[in-house]
Parts: sequence; structure tokens; C-alpha cells
Amino acid sequence: MGKAQTVFSVNRYARVGGGRYGTTLTRVTDQVMTELHRLRDSIDNMDAALVHLLAERFKITQRVGELKAQYGLPPADPAREAQQISRLRELAEEAKLDPEFAEKFLNFIVAEVVRHHQAIAEHHAAS
Amino acid sequence: MGKAQTVFSVNRYARVGGGRYGTTLTRVTDQVMTELHRLRDSIDNMDAALVHLLAERFKITQRVGELKAQYGLPPADPAREAQQISRLRELAEEAKLDPEFAEKFLNFIVAEVVRHHQAIAEHHAAS
Repeated sequence: MGKAQTVFSVNRYARVGGGRYGTTLTRVTDQVMTELHRLRDSIDNMDAALVHLLAERFKITQRVGELKAQYGLPPADPAREAQQISRLRELAEEAKLDPEFAEKFLNFIVAEVVRHHQAIAEHHAAS
Repeated sequence: MGKAQTVFSVNRYARVGGGRYGTTLTRVTDQVMTELHRLRDSIDNMDAALVHLLAERFKITQRVGELKAQYGLPPADPAREAQQISRLRELAEEAKLDPEFAEKFLNFIVAEVVRHHQAIAEHHAAS
């Protein structure tokens, strides 16, 4: 995270002013850059939290995968996944997160989990 | 989350026994189902936490998008993204999460963020 700096950016969206080539130069002040850096620091903190939560989640699904392989349960479970999706969509709406995105997110995670479960089952079969 | 129940599952992976069609029946005990439900409850708790963190993250990137549109900064920022990826891969390794997955995860989130930023920029241009 560098120091706040004053930069000029070509603002293709501004309608004011008569700069050359139909653009204007907007002064991106120290204050703006400081706010951007502050916001990015918060994003970085949240990403660290997300990564650690995901690490814990995969530790648990790893154990689920081992149990499933041991007892011959299928790696994927469509009924359980449907339940998870509907619950996460509700939680997302309450939290003002796009429910479509929440569903895509869960599918993204579950695809990885199923891949792990298949690997565990194959390892189990081979041992 | 249903009550623990005793179920039988066809275990394609078991090498013991001489069940018909080369399979064996494995008794999935109450104890196993109880452990599976306990693990799934933990997964559900983590998913709720993940959704709420993601909601907060998008609130912040929304503000970043507004600032970028206002000052004509580009929606995507490859240098910043490279920094984020390398940091998250390190954090993932410490947390024993597959760094490849952490990178895919960040790309998945950033793609959504850039989509939001483009929408904000277009809205800004049109207003």
C-alpha cells in the first residue's frame, strides 16, 4: 500500500469542461487517494478473514469426505445442496448481497468440495 | 437438518465381503449420521459468516467503484490485483488452504467487482 499521491486521470465520463479530445482532466486529490487506500486496507482485512474461514470450511468438508468414502455415501448430495442454496439466498437478501451471486459463490465452493470428495473416495478405493 | 437415522448405503469402494454385484452393504450408524449433521451445522455457520463478510466486502468495493467513476479511474487495476493474489496465496499457505484455490476464489470475487464497477461507471457516464 503506497503513500497517498496526487494523480491526474483522464475522465472519459465527465460532461463538463472542454478539454482536448472530448475529455477532461480530473484532479485525484490526496484525500481521494487516502480514502481509496483506507478502503483497500479494509478489503485486505476481509480477504484474510475469508481465506481463514474457507480454510476451516475445507477442513470440515475434508472430514465429511472421509466419512462419506468410509461409508460409501456419494460425494455429491443434491438435496443437501438445494437446501444450502435456498438458505444462503435468504441470508444474502437480509445482508443486502445479490442472492444470484451468493448462489454462484456456493456452487463455486461446492464444486471444489465435490472434487476433493471424489479424490478422497478414489484414494479410499485404492487403499 | 433431519434427525440422525440409520441408513444402509451400497459401498462401491469396500473390498471386503462378497455381496451381490461385487458390492457390500455398510451400516451407516446413528453415530456416523450424528457426526455428519454436526459437521454440516458447522459448515452452515461458516457459510452464514462468509455471506455476511462478502456483503460487507461488496459494500466497500461499491464505494471504491463510485470513487473510481467519479475520478475517471479504470474499473480494473491489474497491479493491485497481482498484489492481492500474491498476498492471498501466502495467507492460504499459512492457513493450509490450497493456494491455487485461494487465487481462483479471488479471481471469482474480483470478476464480480469489476462487473459492478463497470455498471457504476456506465451509470455515472449516463447521469
